[in-house]
Amino acid sequence: MSKKHAIGLRLDGAHIRVALVGEDGEIIRKIKQPSSEDILDTSCRAIEAIKNSEIVGIGIGVAGLVDRKNGTVLISPNLPAAEGVKIVREIQSRYRVPTIIENDTNVSALGEKVCGTGKSFNNFVLLTLDAGIGGGIINQGRMLNISAELGHMSINAEGQKCPCGNIGCLENYASARSMITKALQMLEGGTESLLKECYEGSFYKITADDIYKTALEGDTLAREILRNAGKHLGVGLANIINTLSPEAIILTGGLIGAWNIYVQEAIREASRRAFKHLFDSVKIIPSSLGEDAGVIGAACLVFNELSIESR
Amino acid sequence: MSKKHAIGLRLDGAHIRVALVGEDGEIIRKIKQPSSEDILDTSCRAIEAIKNSEIVGIGIGVAGLVDRKNGTVLISPNLPAAEGVKIVREIQSRYRVPTIIENDTNVSALGEKVCGTGKSFNNFVLLTLDAGIGGGIINQGRMLNISAELGHMSINAEGQKCPCGNIGCLENYASARSMITKALQMLEGGTESLLKECYEGSFYKITADDIYKTALEGDTLAREILRNAGKHLGVGLANIINTLSPEAIILTGGLIGAWNIYVQEAIREASRRAFKHLFDSVKIIPSSLGEDAGVIGAACLVFNELSIESR
Repeated sequence: MSKKHAIGLRLDGAHIRVALVGEDGEIIRKIKQPSSEDILDTSCRAIEAIKNSEIVGIGIGVAGLVDRKNGTVLISPNLPAAEGVKIVREIQSRYRVPTIIENDTNVSALGEKVCGTGKSFNNFVLLTLDAGIGGGIINQGRMLNISAELGHMSINAEGQKCPCGNIGCLENYASARSMITKALQMLEGGTESLLKECYEGSFYKITADDIYKTALEGDTLAREILRNAGKHLGVGLANIINTLSPEAIILTGGLIGAWNIYVQEAIREASRRAFKHLFDSVKIIPSSLGEDAGVIGAACLVFNELSIESR
Repeated sequence: MSKKHAIGLRLDGAHIRVALVGEDGEIIRKIKQPSSEDILDTSCRAIEAIKNSEIVGIGIGVAGLVDRKNGTVLISPNLPAAEGVKIVREIQSRYRVPTIIENDTNVSALGEKVCGTGKSFNNFVLLTLDAGIGGGIINQGRMLNISAELGHMSINAEGQKCPCGNIGCLENYASARSMITKALQMLEGGTESLLKECYEGSFYKITADDIYKTALEGDTLAREILRNAGKHLGVGLANIINTLSPEAIILTGGLIGAWNIYVQEAIREASRRAFKHLFDSVKIIPSSLGEDAGVIGAACLVFNELSIESR
């Protein structure tokens, strides 16, 4: 019998990714393109370019809060174009195969479980470290179908107001966006730094990657920003360890490029804070699938669903 | 065929509770007695007073971090006498029935799921509000066998040092112990309050219950302490809602007696902080089983295990 195939679609704020995926999580072909205002139309054109006649279903991972029952996206600060679109109904009626929606970090966690770093763990948390911070939880081998908005836990009850409505969210202290905001504040305030010379002085264009590269050149401000963000990430890691006691925390997203300063500082801080027994039994490690985890996990949603139905 | 019975044993800091429990979670008989230094001996005498010849196993819920594999208690700040005792091995060799150990709030959550407030929810968090704060998580109907030390999430990264090693733990701001500490600080500092008259002036004996009763009499300090603790509990509730999106948060423990001030304030604060969609879909409600949840859940661990094995 030939192997089953499914389509995995992942929509984050910046890109639309589509892949044709086999039952073991292997990618047969894939497309990545910039996001657009008409996400449904752009997604469908990508699906058509990649699908074959054998697909058994389509899994969708979207950044934001999803309504699994009604197949829609409730809120997506990074992808407002997706809010309210009847994405599952539209795609299902077009391709006439089972279609499932999930949060994108949840499906990335599932992808890591099926064929990435998560393969050897039954209980782990995936944390995406990018402009924002997202989470997905695997327990006893299963993806928890909850909204694990780990970037929106308050670690500072009286701290900075977060656009989400909460106060002192982890994301405000440890994300790429928070690092850039901090750097710009300091540069505007006159702090000397090599960051000022980025983009021929148009330093408003700096990215987290620029901060890391400048830190490697020994720049004090850049190092301070990365360490401070790392320290706050460590508070978040300790909270995850104390409240979920995972065997592993798998880190992914653009910021893990800054592992040596940012993540190392986070691990140090978490080691000071978390219950010793729990810290000693958690591995804090990078994802092996990187940005492919989402499309793989999205497709695996379909395989999982089919295997439950056939029992 | 006659119904199966199991023994549920719950050890928190203060009491040893043992019950003979039927398959539907009904308590046939139970004993509650003060904790002792020799918890193994005291527990066994209670088990013998209550067991019948039909028991299929013994489930144990203990306050603290448990080592499920080796059947021991790793750390239990409230019950140090249990640390290092080979409790599962000892009990199993004495009664020759399957014996399982779990964290006590986890088993209480399972008890609520089997026959309490949790019966109508597949995804909920149980939060015990006593001297300390503990948590247990049910997802898709199953108890997560993790250490959900929700009282030890930091909500104030630069806040008060917690005896656990972390900084700014929820427990330091929202537990009965934290309320009493605050009240004593204020009374020692000379703040006028009816609390000063408790116990004929020996106000060091005050309990959280005294604070609540005094608050009901209109005492400003007592009301302020309860509201402030409630506000911080609300930060914790918002974190639980944002990171676990439960259908319900079930509250139990001595402090829920102060629902009108303390819990109401917490719910108000959580409503201001949590994602609106998630807050609107969570019910924050009291436990129906109260202190029986632990022994019921502990016994149900055994029934669950047997049903998995017989599949």
